[in-house]
Amino acid sequence: MALDLIDTNAGLRERLSTPRRTGTTIGFVPTMGALHAGHASLIGRARRDCGCIVVSIFVNPLQFDREDDLARYPRTLDADLDLCRALGADVVFSPTVQEMYPAPPRCTVDVGPLGDHLCGRFRPGHFRGVATVVLKLLQIVQPDAAYFGEKDAQQLAIVRRLVKDFNVPVTIVGVPTAREGDGLALSSRNQRLSREERELAPTLYRALRAAESSIAAGVTDAARIRRDATARIPADPRLKLEYLEVVTADDFQPLQQVDGDVVVAGALWVGDTRLIDNIRCEGLPNPGRDA
Amino acid sequence: MALDLIDTNAGLRERLSTPRRTGTTIGFVPTMGALHAGHASLIGRARRDCGCIVVSIFVNPLQFDREDDLARYPRTLDADLDLCRALGADVVFSPTVQEMYPAPPRCTVDVGPLGDHLCGRFRPGHFRGVATVVLKLLQIVQPDAAYFGEKDAQQLAIVRRLVKDFNVPVTIVGVPTAREGDGLALSSRNQRLSREERELAPTLYRALRAAESSIAAGVTDAARIRRDATARIPADPRLKLEYLEVVTADDFQPLQQVDGDVVVAGALWVGDTRLIDNIRCEGLPNPGRDA
Repeated sequence: MALDLIDTNAGLRERLSTPRRTGTTIGFVPTMGALHAGHASLIGRARRDCGCIVVSIFVNPLQFDREDDLARYPRTLDADLDLCRALGADVVFSPTVQEMYPAPPRCTVDVGPLGDHLCGRFRPGHFRGVATVVLKLLQIVQPDAAYFGEKDAQQLAIVRRLVKDFNVPVTIVGVPTAREGDGLALSSRNQRLSREERELAPTLYRALRAAESSIAAGVTDAARIRRDATARIPADPRLKLEYLEVVTADDFQPLQQVDGDVVVAGALWVGDTRLIDNIRCEGLPNPGRDA
Repeated sequence: MALDLIDTNAGLRERLSTPRRTGTTIGFVPTMGALHAGHASLIGRARRDCGCIVVSIFVNPLQFDREDDLARYPRTLDADLDLCRALGADVVFSPTVQEMYPAPPRCTVDVGPLGDHLCGRFRPGHFRGVATVVLKLLQIVQPDAAYFGEKDAQQLAIVRRLVKDFNVPVTIVGVPTAREGDGLALSSRNQRLSREERELAPTLYRALRAAESSIAAGVTDAARIRRDATARIPADPRLKLEYLEVVTADDFQPLQQVDGDVVVAGALWVGDTRLIDNIRCEGLPNPGRDA
């Protein structure tokens, strides 16, 4: 079937009325466009699970804390449509800002302490904006399942919690991070990197792997894990570490001692481009705390 | 058909799967129980509009700012079920607190400036609690239409805005306030009034009507309208006016000058019982401002 490009809420509801009536499962992949192989793995997973696939492409102003980042965010609609078509998506939903926010929103989602740390600390309002637009899109699309990348781990944790706290009738599926051969997590922002910056970019992943090794070796002191990991980041004026933290895997709260599953997450500026990544680690139960 | 009493989200979804599949419209009346003729008019309106009527009865702890008010809130389930049956409701959904809040919610609805004034000023967190539980109930029930009393005018405005801002696919229907012969707005809290307090209770409505008369007579100065209205409240130690304000009809912001439609709203303590009421007034366009 042909790919339908739809830009209004009413048009989308109309398009989805038949699959909904006939009990066809609807799979939803929300994106900000500039699609890459990471998105392709989300769409591919949705395609395997569901009968009708909706991909949204919407660069959500509410989640940008910096005007310049919003302005510079890559927009590649034609290529995005080609990729969606090739992957067998049924609908691309690409609303205007006016359609999504006809007036400045009065009601927004307060994500509470889930948004206090990591990216939330450095991007004020970011997760409020993410949670609000995800809730809106889930109401517009009303999918059976929605697919999110584990690369944005804090976002995924917040979306899972949002759906649980508000009883939104949808299954949230997390999909493993897609990586380049050298470990760099795929991101739309990678397009902005110069050749030299691209070579430096896997630094973040290497630091996270170092943290993972420390944890696997039984190190439980979060400060030491952090120190060992950040030591892998070369002193280069083009690299600026924003954060690298060890947090609880379920609600992203900072830890002093590893005890059970954790996430090690970091944000690194490479030139003018901010990259994020994370690894989930199965921490050994801390014998000192168990005693 | 018999009335079904259901206390789990899963049970309700199961019960509603058939009407949903067969395209029967679902009408929803959220309540905190202690049903009276005001609720009856909501249920009656829903019954006329829709094929399947769900009434929820849930005393939502998240919207109570005072423990004692929550503890003292009247609970009359058997009588409520009788009324729902008599009115032809199909389902009463009466979940436990544990079912609605298996864990303290992390994500809640921030209602922004809509909750800053009137009741929001005196009941911190109240409208966050209301908006959060209404959003949850709308997700669980997924009704075509939901019915709210105009007596809780600020709540109704917030619910309308919530649904719009989050694109929740439901029609919100406001139903006029039901009143006793002497003007007292029906409320579950009226049950708490002693005979003497009951006689004093219509004072609030009389004050609001005085404000309405002033506005109809062309008074535009909100302070003067307020003064004329509050003068109607007798100096009685059992009466304590919490607020009486003139606000914009669309978003409940305070006004200095009446210019177009407004709401005059008040909260009056009668003994230990807090009563609220409001009147919507069609203000004359202010010639001074038009000039």
